[in-house]
This record gives sequence, C-alpha cells and structure tokens, in this order.
Amino acid sequence: MQYLQKINYKMSLLVVGTVAFDAIETPFGKIDKITGGSGNYICHSAGHFVHNMQLVSVIGDDYDQDELNYLKSIGTDIDGVKVLNGEKSFFWSGRYHMDLNRRDTLATELNALASFDPVLPDSFKNAEFLILGNIDPALQAKVISQMQERPKLIAMDTMNFWMDIALEPLKNVLKMVDLLVVNEEEARQLTNEYSLVKAATKIREMGPKFLIIKKGEHGALLFHGNRVFFAPALPLEDVFDPTGAGDTFAGGFMGYLAKTKDLSFENMKRAVIYGSAMASFCVEKFGPQRLKELTEAEIEERVQIFIELVDFDIILK
Amino acid sequence: MQYLQKINYKMSLLVVGTVAFDAIETPFGKIDKITGGSGNYICHSAGHFVHNMQLVSVIGDDYDQDELNYLKSIGTDIDGVKVLNGEKSFFWSGRYHMDLNRRDTLATELNALASFDPVLPDSFKNAEFLILGNIDPALQAKVISQMQERPKLIAMDTMNFWMDIALEPLKNVLKMVDLLVVNEEEARQLTNEYSLVKAATKIREMGPKFLIIKKGEHGALLFHGNRVFFAPALPLEDVFDPTGAGDTFAGGFMGYLAKTKDLSFENMKRAVIYGSAMASFCVEKFGPQRLKELTEAEIEERVQIFIELVDFDIILK
Repeated sequence: MQYLQKINYKMSLLVVGTVAFDAIETPFGKIDKITGGSGNYICHSAGHFVHNMQLVSVIGDDYDQDELNYLKSIGTDIDGVKVLNGEKSFFWSGRYHMDLNRRDTLATELNALASFDPVLPDSFKNAEFLILGNIDPALQAKVISQMQERPKLIAMDTMNFWMDIALEPLKNVLKMVDLLVVNEEEARQLTNEYSLVKAATKIREMGPKFLIIKKGEHGALLFHGNRVFFAPALPLEDVFDPTGAGDTFAGGFMGYLAKTKDLSFENMKRAVIYGSAMASFCVEKFGPQRLKELTEAEIEERVQIFIELVDFDIILK
Repeated sequence: MQYLQKINYKMSLLVVGTVAFDAIETPFGKIDKITGGSGNYICHSAGHFVHNMQLVSVIGDDYDQDELNYLKSIGTDIDGVKVLNGEKSFFWSGRYHMDLNRRDTLATELNALASFDPVLPDSFKNAEFLILGNIDPALQAKVISQMQERPKLIAMDTMNFWMDIALEPLKNVLKMVDLLVVNEEEARQLTNEYSLVKAATKIREMGPKFLIIKKGEHGALLFHGNRVFFAPALPLEDVFDPTGAGDTFAGGFMGYLAKTKDLSFENMKRAVIYGSAMASFCVEKFGPQRLKELTEAEIEERVQIFIELVDFDIILK
C-alpha cells in the first residue's frame, strides 16, 4: 500500500497559485463574488484530465468550504492550501470594456496572499509535473527548490508586473523551468522585441526550452527548437467573461500532458489544442462555473471543432 | 482562332484596382518611389498562378513603361489601363510605426485616379473571375454592370473610408458580389458588432455568401454557410514592409481559384493558404519587389511551412 502511494505521488500534477474571490463586471452582467485565482482555475481545468492534483496556495478563513470540497472531489489534494485565521482571502475586482480585451482593475486586496510562503507537504515533493501560476518569481523559485526530485516538466506563468518590479528574480526562475506561458505583450516586454519569433528565441535563451505565447482570440503559438505550432482560437459568437481563460488554458495543457505523459513536440501540440478547448468553455460563463459542469463528451466535441477549424488539404508536387 | 480567343477570354481573371507610385518609410528603411496600388499588387501575385489577367485601372503619363511591360510579361492584358496625358499617377506616401501595425499617411495625391471611370474593353466583358480592388463602391458596381455574363465569382475589397462616406453605394455593391475581403476593424465597423462571428453573419446577410476577414499577423478567417476556416499567418522574424500584403493575399487567393476553377469550400481554404503564403513573401522587401523574383519552388516550400505550422494529430474516441 505504501508502495502504491509512492507511485501515486510520482504521478501527480503539482499546482502552485492563488485561490481567491473575484468580483467581475462585463458588458453582459455582473457578479459580486465568485471564486477565482490561478491555482483554482488550473485545478478546475486540469481536473478534467487527471485526478491526482496537489494544490499549494493560501486563503483566509472566509473561503468557501463547498468550493474546497469541490476541488477535493475532482482529485485535488489540498493539504498544501494554508488557511490563515483572521485573514480574508485574496480579492480581485475588475470591469471589462465592450471589446473584452481591455479591463480596468477596480480593486486588488492581497489579504492572505500578502504573507504567502509556499511550503510543500512532503507528499508533494515528488510530483511528476509542476505548474507555477503567476505569483512572485522568488516564491516560484522557492517551490522548485523544495522538490526532492526534478519534475519531468516544470511550467510557469508570469506577468508584466513582475518584469517591472522583480526582473532579476524572474530571470533566475526562468533558468529553472522547462516551459513558460505568457501572452504577446508579456513576451515583448520581457525581450524588448516586437517580432514574436525574435522574442521567442530570446526567451528560450533565458532558460525554458518550450514557450507558449497566448494571443487570446487569435490563438496561441508553441515554440520548441526550430519548430513552431500555431494553434487557433475558436471564433466565438459571445465571450461572456474572459476571467481565468489563460489559467484554464494552462490547466488543460498541463492536465493533458500529465495524463498522457508524453513530452514530445507532437503531444505538446495536442496539449495546446486541449488547453485552447478548455479556455473556450471558460469564457462562456462567469468564473469557473462552466468548467464545473463540463462533460468529457463536450470536451471531445469541442476538440473536433478545433480539428475542423484549421483542417485543409494541399498536396504539393 | 476566334473561337479559341473567346474561350480564352472566358477563362480570364479580371482585376480592377489602382496602379500607383508609393513612397514608403519603415523602421528598416525608406524608398522614395516604388510601384504600388491594389490592381498592381493583385496582378503581381495572381500572375504566379494564371497568365490570362485583364487589368482595369488609370495612370498618368509619368508611369514607368518597364513596369507596364513587366505586367504584360506575366500575362496581364493592360488594354483596360487608361493613360491620362498631362496627369500624374496616383501617389501614396506613408510611414510605419515600430510595430508595423500602425502607419501614418503622409500624402495621398489622387491625380489621375480622381477621374477614374472604369470602362471595360469588350474583350474583358466575359471574364470568368472578377476581383474588385478597394476603390469607390459606385465604380465597383459600374464594373459589374458592364459584364456581359456574370463571372463565376466576384470578389471585392473595401475600406473604412467608404463606410464613412459612401455606405449606401457600398451596401448596394455588396448585394452584387460573392465574396468580400476585409480586415477585422472593417468587419466591425461595417456591422457595429465586435464579435467577428456576429459580424460575419451580418455581412453575409448583406450579400456576399463568402467572407474573408484578414487579421494580419494573426492569420485570416474564411466564412461560408455555417463553416469557418482559420488560416494561420506565418510567424515572421522580420517584416520589412507590410505595404500591399492585403492585395497580395487577395491576388494569390483569386489567382489560385482562377487556376483551379473549383469554388468548393475545400478549395477556397487552399486558396486562402496560397494567398497567405504570397502575403508572407510580399512583406520581405519594399513594394512588390519580392513578388517579381519569386519562383514556383519557393511558393511550394512556403506552403509546406504553412501545412506544418498548423498540423496536429488528435484521434478522438
């Protein structure tokens, strides 16, 4: 039994990120309180592929027990989620513009997150896959340094904010990871290159041998060696709420890799498509709601649409 | 012989658009005088697929005879290019910003174009395919009304400018065409819809049963019935000069269709890929220079890169 458990630990997907409350206003509606945070979205999404996730985060004692139970029900070990008594959970509030590509942040209350100091339970230290959500790069490095064995794949997200105030710690953690997920703007800021091809080359010189550049409604690019894969985004009639789409993409991507355990470029491309499919569901409702009710059949159907979307057939001489 | 000529006329690609001089400044260089204009770019591009083009345009007596000879050498009948003595050719001058997505127009001198009144030579009136470059929609309609037989496919381009000052004539010509090519911004302005899916539905209700929305470095979308095709753009290390890329795309698209004479959605998708490949060459040098020197082998090689760019392999249950 103990042997089996050990095996199980080795097969897990370790997720480090925020667990939060969000208040969201879009042109289509308004919600005062819904769960959010990168760690929360990643687990909601990856849980459709694997059921052995381990979450490291911090919350206040105001967090919703039903929501934690939901995470457990989809296979998340929440032993790494620290509850700070007398504190409130991280809170973010934002309002989207009509085009949904721009948003104003109305409030960012760090609360419990201000003292986040990720300490891995022993049972988390042999995880096979590690995804570091967008948090302080010094904390991302600290997580990696606690691993007993190097995961097969370490992926990380980051944002402009850390490039502005913590560029050196960010560069330090980039040397330790295999894959970086950023959006176009972030790739450009990190490298001072407008061309994404040039930016991709510079980023991979900084450490990660795989790079995903997310382009929102325009899809995503996967770079590795001298290869590039262009994944489409689904042209959507309506985007209801874009919050969490990026983390949902990352969760689907890592979940698919953790399930298939194949790190070839061919399989990474499949993972990007599954991640994109998950993101296309996320935006259909407020917060992670749509991800909760999603069935495997719906995911397969959506992936089929992605397949048809880019399918063409040219026979060259 | 006359019978053969008739057949030949029926197989032609009729191109209506501007032939001009441009002065271009990009972050990478500056050129004071190079040929430009939608009709000119379309022929340069389509000429790699068909050699029976017919061009309708207007120029001044300052236009470069060598350039006209080049158009003839690639199979363009220039009987429809009117030369206005004592007038100068249409002149456009622009400066691109660092990101190459934005440009400032420094000068627009209509010159000969101000009195453009397209009159089709009789031998042009049976063309099998017709592409109307971005000109006054009233003139686009006038061209169509001169056709003896309706072409198999009528495609048109337009721009925001005509939506601002000639929306009714534009709506009128939209009823007469099969395919509209516009960029994202234009699709949104024409319909007051931010969602491209909704915009596409509205535009097709206006007339054209096929719609291509160009997204520049993000690729292009082809809409028909309830089908969508997402064509990638090649992630480029360097874009030297984006001038004419849209017309080059349209020229490659129409040239491929005129060559293959297959208007199925499957073949339209191939045409979009060939158009995208042509556009990816266009931006490599100033003006249509790169299109002049291009070989068939280079085009096939580029299309192969497009095939690999979006290729993935998911087998669903």
